[in-house]
Amino acid sequence: MTETVRARRTRERVGSGPKQMPWRRVENSFRPLEVLSAEQIERIHIASLKLLSDFGLEFQNDEALGILAAGGAQVDMGTRMVRFPSDVVEHFIAQAPATAEVYSWNPEKRIGVGGTEIAFGTVGGPPNCSDLERGRRPGTYRDQCDLIRLEQSLNVIHFCGGAPVEAIDLPADTRHLDTAFAFLTLTDRPFFGRAIGATRIADAMAMAAIARGVDVSALSTQPAIMSVISVNSPRRVDQEMANGLMQLVRARQPAIVTPFTLQGAMSPVTLAGALVQQNAEALGVLAFAQMVNPGAPVVYGGFTSNVDMRSGAPAFGTPEYARAAIAGGQLARRYRLPYRTSNVNASNAVDAQAAYESEMSLWAAVIGGGNLIHHGAGWLEGGLCASFEKMVLDAEMMQMMAEFVRPVVIDDAEIGLSAHEEVAAGGHFFGSAHTLERFETAFYQPMVSDWRNYEAWKEAGSIDATRRAHLIWKELLANYQAPPLDIARKEALVEYVARRKAEIAKTGLD
Amino acid sequence: MTETVRARRTRERVGSGPKQMPWRRVENSFRPLEVLSAEQIERIHIASLKLLSDFGLEFQNDEALGILAAGGAQVDMGTRMVRFPSDVVEHFIAQAPATAEVYSWNPEKRIGVGGTEIAFGTVGGPPNCSDLERGRRPGTYRDQCDLIRLEQSLNVIHFCGGAPVEAIDLPADTRHLDTAFAFLTLTDRPFFGRAIGATRIADAMAMAAIARGVDVSALSTQPAIMSVISVNSPRRVDQEMANGLMQLVRARQPAIVTPFTLQGAMSPVTLAGALVQQNAEALGVLAFAQMVNPGAPVVYGGFTSNVDMRSGAPAFGTPEYARAAIAGGQLARRYRLPYRTSNVNASNAVDAQAAYESEMSLWAAVIGGGNLIHHGAGWLEGGLCASFEKMVLDAEMMQMMAEFVRPVVIDDAEIGLSAHEEVAAGGHFFGSAHTLERFETAFYQPMVSDWRNYEAWKEAGSIDATRRAHLIWKELLANYQAPPLDIARKEALVEYVARRKAEIAKTGLD
Repeated sequence: MTETVRARRTRERVGSGPKQMPWRRVENSFRPLEVLSAEQIERIHIASLKLLSDFGLEFQNDEALGILAAGGAQVDMGTRMVRFPSDVVEHFIAQAPATAEVYSWNPEKRIGVGGTEIAFGTVGGPPNCSDLERGRRPGTYRDQCDLIRLEQSLNVIHFCGGAPVEAIDLPADTRHLDTAFAFLTLTDRPFFGRAIGATRIADAMAMAAIARGVDVSALSTQPAIMSVISVNSPRRVDQEMANGLMQLVRARQPAIVTPFTLQGAMSPVTLAGALVQQNAEALGVLAFAQMVNPGAPVVYGGFTSNVDMRSGAPAFGTPEYARAAIAGGQLARRYRLPYRTSNVNASNAVDAQAAYESEMSLWAAVIGGGNLIHHGAGWLEGGLCASFEKMVLDAEMMQMMAEFVRPVVIDDAEIGLSAHEEVAAGGHFFGSAHTLERFETAFYQPMVSDWRNYEAWKEAGSIDATRRAHLIWKELLANYQAPPLDIARKEALVEYVARRKAEIAKTGLD
Repeated sequence: MTETVRARRTRERVGSGPKQMPWRRVENSFRPLEVLSAEQIERIHIASLKLLSDFGLEFQNDEALGILAAGGAQVDMGTRMVRFPSDVVEHFIAQAPATAEVYSWNPEKRIGVGGTEIAFGTVGGPPNCSDLERGRRPGTYRDQCDLIRLEQSLNVIHFCGGAPVEAIDLPADTRHLDTAFAFLTLTDRPFFGRAIGATRIADAMAMAAIARGVDVSALSTQPAIMSVISVNSPRRVDQEMANGLMQLVRARQPAIVTPFTLQGAMSPVTLAGALVQQNAEALGVLAFAQMVNPGAPVVYGGFTSNVDMRSGAPAFGTPEYARAAIAGGQLARRYRLPYRTSNVNASNAVDAQAAYESEMSLWAAVIGGGNLIHHGAGWLEGGLCASFEKMVLDAEMMQMMAEFVRPVVIDDAEIGLSAHEEVAAGGHFFGSAHTLERFETAFYQPMVSDWRNYEAWKEAGSIDATRRAHLIWKELLANYQAPPLDIARKEALVEYVARRKAEIAKTGLD
C-alpha cells in the first residue's frame, strides 16, 4: 500500500467510532442451496397433508374452532381436534401473499419480507442478560433499554425481534407497553409484538400508529408489527396464541407461524419426521390464518433442531439444525411464502462454540433462502440469555453475510487486464491505477475482527474478540443518539402508556 | 428422555475418551452453491486465456521452458516469459483426470480426490505453534510430532497437510526426512510432501514406498504423496517449484497447483481480476504439468483472499474469501478438475474470531464443492501459527460439516407418521417407539460443544470451548497409540533416513 493511501485510511478511522457498514436492505444474489430433491419435497408435502387430514391439530380456542369449521375443516368440538382436508389446506395457503413490506415510523427503514430479501433481527424473549463486566443476571427494564439502544446502534439490524431481555422488574401485565415505548422512542426499526392474547398486539399497533402519526387503520396496508405465533408442538395451538394470531391477521400484520419441532422431544427423532410435522403445523395454522382474513401477510417459520442425547436439553446450530433450516426454506418456497429462520446456539459463554454454532445457523439461514433471520443478534444459552458482547459479534457475522450475498460483477473494468501491463511477473498491485481507483471501497471492513500481526496485537494487550466486542458495545452506547421521533408523538405515546396502565390496573389485561 | 435411555447413554460415555465420529470417507450429497452464472464463468475463462496468451507466465527454470516450447507455448528464453496459445491450454487441460485416489500404508485409509468427495486435511507450514499452557513459540520437532500424533488421533482428518509446524530445531536441508518419518510412523494417513526442489518429493516417495512395502514405481498407480505447487503470484513459477512439480507429475503424484492471489497485493483488487489471474495461473501451470506427463493427477487450487485495507496484511475467512472460494470450485468443475480450498482465519487467539472466520472458510469450502480442504485443522494467525486447541476446535467444526453433507433420507419409516398415534397433541416423543429405535444414533454427538444448562456448566467450572479443546488434546495425546506399522519397515525407514542424512551432509541437498 502506498504511504498516501495508508495515511488517508488512518485519518478516516480516527474518532469515527466502531466501523460499520451503512444500513441497507439486503438482497440474496444467489440461488439457495438445496438439501432435498424435488421428489423429497413432494413426499414431505404429501405426508404433511396426511398428518393434517388423519391426525389434525388441536385448537384450544372456541372462536378459532368456529372459523375452522366454517372454512371446511372437520372440527371435533369435544376434543378440539381439527382435521384439515387437503384441498382446504391447499385452497387457503394459496391465498397468502408471497411478499410483504413492514414499516417503522421512519419511512427510510421499511423492510421487505419474502422474495430474495434478507432482513436481520435481534434476539427476543430471554429472561436473563449478561455482559463481561456485570455478569449474568435476570433482565431489567434498564438492561432492556440498553440492549434496544444497542440494536439501534448496529446498522445491520433490520428489525427488533421482541424484548431483547424480559424486564423482570416491571409488572407482567403492562410491561409490553414499556417495551413498545422503548422500541418506538429508542429505535427507528420495525419491531415484534407479543402475540399472547390479542391485547398486547392491539397496544403495539396503537402505539406504532401514534409514532407514525396515522390512524391505526393505516397499518392494514402498511404493517408495523410482526409477531411470532408459536405452535405448541406437537400439534397444539393454545387459547392465547390463537387470539393473538386472529388479532394480527385481522389487522393484516405479518404473522410468523413457527412450530418448535425439536427432534426427539416435540417431534419425531428423525429429520424427515420433524420436517413433516413442522410443515403440517405451519400449513394448518397458516390455512387457519387465511380463513380469518384471506390475503393477510403471513410467514412460514421453521425452528427444527435436536435435543442433546445425554440430557434431553435442546441443542442449536447443530448439523441437524442446519439441514432442517435449509429444508425449511425449500418448503416455504414450495408454497411461495416468506421464510423465517434463526441464528441460534446453545453455548453458555461468548466463546468459540457460540461463534461456530451461530455460524452453522447463520450460513444455513442465508444460503437456505431465509427472509427473516430472527434472533440474529444477541442470543446465547439456547435463548435463555441475551449477551451484550454476543450482539456485537453477531452483528459482525451478519454484516459479513450481507457482504457475501452481494451480486458478483464480472466485466472488463473489474477484470482489469490492463493492471497486468503495470505489474510485472512477481510484482505487486498495491500501487497500480486499477487498485488505487478501487481501494477505498473494495473490501469489507470489519468491526470486531483484528487482522494485525501477532506482535502488534500482543503489544496492544492481547485483547480477544469477545473483549473487543465488549469495548465496542460500550463505545456504541456512549455514542448512542436517539432517532428523531417527533416530540408531540413521543408525548402522545407517554400519554397512551399512562392511560393503558391505569386501565389495566382497573380491569386487568384481557 | 426415559431414565433407561439416559442411563445407557451415561454409561457409554464413561471412560471412552473424547467422543468422536468414526473415520470415514465423506461424500457431499448436495449440489454446490454457485456465486457465478454460467455466463460469468465463461467470461472468466476467456479473460484467463487472454491473460495467458497476451501476458503469459514467467517460468524461472530452463528445463521447464524447453518442455513448454515443445508443447506449443511461445517461449522467450531471454525474459523466460511463456505465452500460451488458447488451444494449447485447452488441449493439455483436457488430458488431466477428473479424480484420483491417494493411498497411505494402511489400505483402509486411502482417500479419493475429486468428484463429490471431501477430504479434510491439517495445517501445513507454520513456523510457530501455541497452546494455552505453554504459549506461542517457534516450532520444534517435538511439537511437530505431538501435532502429528494429534492429527492421527482425530478421526475426521483424512490427510496430513505437510509439517503442522516447522521443526526449527532441525537442520533445514534434512528436516523433511524427519517429518516424513513422523508422518509414516505416527499416522496411517496420506501426507503432503514439500515440492521445493525435486529431492524432498523423491525422499518422501521413497519412504512412503518403504512403509507400504512396495517398490517406489508402484506409487505411480497408487499415489502416496500430494504436494502444493505454489505460484508466486503474479504470474511467476520459480526454479524450485518447477523442479518439484516436474518430479511430482513424472511420478504421477497429485500436484495441487495453487496461485496465491491476494486481492490488491498479488492480484488486482477486484474479485473478477483476482479470479481471472488465479484461473490463468492455475491453467498455465496445469497445462505445463500435462505437457510433462499427460494424464498425471493434478488438482486445481484456489487461494484468493484480500488484504487488510489498513495495513496491507492478508485477511482470511472474509466475505471476499468466501465468494472467491466458491467461485474457485465453479471454475475447477468447469475444467472437470478436483478442487483444493482451505479452512483459514487471521485471528491471533483461539477465540470467537478464529471460529467465525474459520466457519466462513469452511462453509464456502464445503458448499462450494471443495474436494481437498487443506489447512483444515490447526491454522491460526493467517498461517503463521499452529494451535493445539484450534486443531481440536477445527476437528469439531469439520465433523459437523461431514454430518451436514450426509444424504437426507425421506421415506415412510423416517417420516414415521405412526409415532403420532403414540403421542397426543401437546405431548412428547421421548418415549415413543419411533424415537427409542433410533435415539442412539439419530444425532451428531459433539466433541467440544457443551450443551448443559448454564447452572450445570457453571457448577462444572465455567470452562469455555477453547479450554475444553485444551483438555481434549491433552486427553487425546495421553491416549495416543501409534498405528501398527510393520517393525521391519519402520527399521528400514530409520536406515533410509540415516543414509540420506549422511549423503546430504556430504553432497548437500540438490
